[in-house]
Amino acid sequence: MKKSLGANTLAQPTPVWLVGSYDAAGKPNVMTIAWGGICCSKPPCVTVSVRKERHTYPAVLARKAFTVSVPSETYARQADYAGMASGAKADKFAAMGLTPAKSDLVDAPYVQEFPLVLECKLLQAIDLGAHTQFIGEIMDVKADESVLNAEGHIDPAKLRPIIFAPGSSLYYGLGEIVGKAFSIGKEIGG
Amino acid sequence: MKKSLGANTLAQPTPVWLVGSYDAAGKPNVMTIAWGGICCSKPPCVTVSVRKERHTYPAVLARKAFTVSVPSETYARQADYAGMASGAKADKFAAMGLTPAKSDLVDAPYVQEFPLVLECKLLQAIDLGAHTQFIGEIMDVKADESVLNAEGHIDPAKLRPIIFAPGSSLYYGLGEIVGKAFSIGKEIGG
Repeated sequence: MKKSLGANTLAQPTPVWLVGSYDAAGKPNVMTIAWGGICCSKPPCVTVSVRKERHTYPAVLARKAFTVSVPSETYARQADYAGMASGAKADKFAAMGLTPAKSDLVDAPYVQEFPLVLECKLLQAIDLGAHTQFIGEIMDVKADESVLNAEGHIDPAKLRPIIFAPGSSLYYGLGEIVGKAFSIGKEIGG
Repeated sequence: MKKSLGANTLAQPTPVWLVGSYDAAGKPNVMTIAWGGICCSKPPCVTVSVRKERHTYPAVLARKAFTVSVPSETYARQADYAGMASGAKADKFAAMGLTPAKSDLVDAPYVQEFPLVLECKLLQAIDLGAHTQFIGEIMDVKADESVLNAEGHIDPAKLRPIIFAPGSSLYYGLGEIVGKAFSIGKEIGG
């Protein structure tokens, strides 16, 4: 028997990503979001949603660029902080003890210490109400060699991304492998 | 030292969600997606990306509705199958041994056996290239009582959503709690 929980955003799982931008003064800033995801394969695009009140909002629009820095779970405290503090008041990079790295491809900074980074050119800004959805074309993905396997691919168990659970507001780590995609379903058909 | 992996969709983590719709003949169908996420808090909105070639594409546009059914990891085989097979050829619900439940709120079916369901009214369809992004307003979220805690909230450890890792194409389960959001970052500031 299913129970109605109302009209809300209790979807699971959601990501924990830090959106990087330069503000009007040229100061590097990051804010943490869970409202986002990949939205197209060709061109490769990612979407991140930001409230208009956030310091990041005019910054992304002005430079038509943002980055997505993916923290490993060892950076959960920093990720949580960057979702609460405002770049209008604080130098979040300094407070977190992290380093802003300038992208060569887009006009936005990323978090040097985080193991996975997406550099994005703003394609569209879609006002949905409380949030505006920024759709960015992914110009490059960069990863630390420490999270790559022998074949040069990202090993999720080394990357250890954080998963946010709306409702309980808990951060989770990655669990065990459940199966191989495009494979385990073949016994049913397809 | 970061290594360039090229312009692609290697973001982590991504969800494993089944998008439900009725086709032109009224047959209930589901397809699995990993390109999606919550995109607005007010109104509550979710985005799912679908290729134009998919059976789901005209179905969502015609009825201006879709559902998102969230499988627990025990349904990983079914979720994998529903991403490979086409509703144009197969009755996927029958093949998976799952039950289409008619939504009372929107003109789309959901997976009765899955523990968490979002019922969505189509707000926008944004053509991005290979994929079209469907933005839906979440009219209701429904959950099985078995995944709720004593306070009536979703317990992610009971829900056990699946996490997809692009690149390795592996499905993962949820791991351990890393910390409480809007809390563990306070020692830094904010």
